[in-house]
Formats: sequence, structure tokens, C-alpha cells
Amino acid sequence: MIVGKEKNVEPAEVNEKDIEGVSMKVVISSEDGAPNFVMRVFDIQPGGHTAYHTHAWEHEVYVLEGKGMVRQDKREYTLEKGSFVLVPPEEEHSFSNTGDGLFRFICVVPIVR
Amino acid sequence: MIVGKEKNVEPAEVNEKDIEGVSMKVVISSEDGAPNFVMRVFDIQPGGHTAYHTHAWEHEVYVLEGKGMVRQDKREYTLEKGSFVLVPPEEEHSFSNTGDGLFRFICVVPIVR
Repeated sequence: MIVGKEKNVEPAEVNEKDIEGVSMKVVISSEDGAPNFVMRVFDIQPGGHTAYHTHAWEHEVYVLEGKGMVRQDKREYTLEKGSFVLVPPEEEHSFSNTGDGLFRFICVVPIVR
Repeated sequence: MIVGKEKNVEPAEVNEKDIEGVSMKVVISSEDGAPNFVMRVFDIQPGGHTAYHTHAWEHEVYVLEGKGMVRQDKREYTLEKGSFVLVPPEEEHSFSNTGDGLFRFICVVPIVR
């Protein structure tokens, strides 16, 4: 069993174009022995956003704090604490902070082998 | 893309012996098109606990609120908001609420086929 506190985890670099004010902590990964999926916590600063992109794997997201939005093409969905999002594989998406405070969410992805 | 709010999800029954004060919401599942893993939110009332049990799949847990504990044999780990836990497959475990308020956590499990 692995037990930890998110506040003790160092943020990892997010190496991607077209992102602003985004940091990520990988809290549970294959390095801890996770066999199937990775749990990350994203912090987006006010005005910040992730890239509008697509990839072969899904996201399962749960909002911890703040106000935000997820966009897909012309559709925008408002997000707040307790919102959840399934982004299926190959679907374009971008998450944005639309509030005055930090926008925080958990994002779980499969381990890509 | 599936977007929802946890407060609008009905709790599912938790059919298991030796649990007390536990309710669960399945927020993202295969019925939503999730290909690999299921996201659930657990609420444990003060004094409540999940079963001390083991199974073939892992848990990835992130604590949302409250004070709690995860036990494995004689080891006990204190949990609070921002704590995370990886319970590997086949490892015994039980989660308890050790505080005065609700103990809430996200628990992600693989889809067992």
C-alpha cells in the first residue's frame, strides 16, 4: 500500500504547446506499482488553460476546487467543485479556468504501454 | 464527452457485509462509455467503515474531505483532504472515518471484464 499527501508531491513539468498557467502533480503512477492507470492533479491559474488537443486515451476528471470550463469544438461546459467529465479517446478538448481563484481537478488516464 | 455534477448522481447500493455508514456514487462508468476504469465517490459517516477485505483489482483513492484512516493488518495510515492511496491488487484494506464530519474520497477501479 502506498499512502501520501498531495502537498508533498513536487509538480511535474507539462511539456506542451498552447498551455498557460498549468501545473500538474502525478500522485499515483506506475512507479508506485499502479498496474492500469495514473492519477494526476491539475492546477490551472486564473486565465489559464490546457491545450486544445486530442489523443488516443481517455480522461476521467473530477473537479476539486474553483470555476472552469471544458470546451469541445463550439460546445462549452461549465465546471465547478463536484463536476466530473469523461473525455473519450480521440475527442478534442481543452480545460480553462474561468474564475478568480485556482481551478483544480483530478485527471485519471490509462497507463499507455 | 460526458459532463455531470456529482450532486445529481443517485447513490448506489453497497452490497457487502461488515460495512457501516458507507454510501457510494458511481460518477463515471462503462455505461458512460468509459473504456478502462470507473470513478466512484465514497461517503463514510462518522464511526463508519468499509469492509476489511481483498480483491483482484487495485484502488486509487484521493481524499476530498474529512478525517479517516486506511488499515492493512496492524498498520494504520491517517488520511485527510489531499491524501492519496494506492491499494494494489490482492492487498487487504479497510477505510474508516475517524473524524466528526463526513469522510469523502474518490476511488477509481479498473473495469473488470
